Amino acid sequence: MRALRSADELAQGMEFDLGGFVLPRAEVLDFARRWDPQPFHLDEEAARQSVFGRLVASGLHTYSAAVGHLIRSGLLAEINLAGGGAELIWPAPLEPDQPVTMRLQVAEIRTSRSKPEMAVAKLRYLVATAAEGRVVLDALGTHFLRR
Amino acid sequence: MRALRSADELAQGMEFDLGGFVLPRAEVLDFARRWDPQPFHLDEEAARQSVFGRLVASGLHTYSAAVGHLIRSGLLAEINLAGGGAELIWPAPLEPDQPVTMRLQVAEIRTSRSKPEMAVAKLRYLVATAAEGRVVLDALGTHFLRR
Repeated sequence: MRALRSADELAQGMEFDLGGFVLPRAEVLDFARRWDPQPFHLDEEAARQSVFGRLVASGLHTYSAAVGHLIRSGLLAEINLAGGGAELIWPAPLEPDQPVTMRLQVAEIRTSRSKPEMAVAKLRYLVATAAEGRVVLDALGTHFLRR
Repeated sequence: MRALRSADELAQGMEFDLGGFVLPRAEVLDFARRWDPQPFHLDEEAARQSVFGRLVASGLHTYSAAVGHLIRSGLLAEINLAGGGAELIWPAPLEPDQPVTMRLQVAEIRTSRSKPEMAVAKLRYLVATAAEGRVVLDALGTHFLRR
């Protein structure tokens, strides 16, 4: 994907198709062991008795994979200065080995009041199952971008 | 830490001291390579020329470590049914090897309208440097808890 040269190339409403990714079962277990060791992310039998009814990826894993996927796309490589925060919603759980697609939407963008060479953008990461289009992550990240 | 037996043991305003943790330098680099491969998380020289002025941990790493730390504390082991979302703010960056403390505050808690056996809680994760008390993560997580 082409690297943006300036935040000024972005405008509210723009959308970028970032392709997709998958969380393989072994990675789901590894991630959960390290960062979110709860039974419904680690053990098939415990997961069956959880509210999920089956083993599901940690939402933190889905978000981490989305961040990694965005960074590796290269789109923001020349302009992303820092992140300030994020609002995360996991509308549905994601199962291991279930392919997802990712889109990036420009929800808001404005010039920084204190640093006019910088823009403050709210970028929406939308991750959905490729098969059904069910949204599994809706994240609104605050990005400080070079103009 | 004692495992809560029911969400009914929680009330707005309660606070739990969860001790602390540290993100060792090797882990900061490993995490960034895998989930947030940006120069200011990976390379000392590039980081010096970034807005941070030195190498800093990925905010995603700080958040992941906080989630892992909370889960491993065991406090919610018997009552955490699922997470619904989170609002994350990184007020300041965290450097490798800088010890932090973590507190958990009950920001809101109510019985679920649709499932009276369940509570919906907003739990605030506050992670601050042990030396200066500078907040590096302020996260408000939505948790579905067993009553």
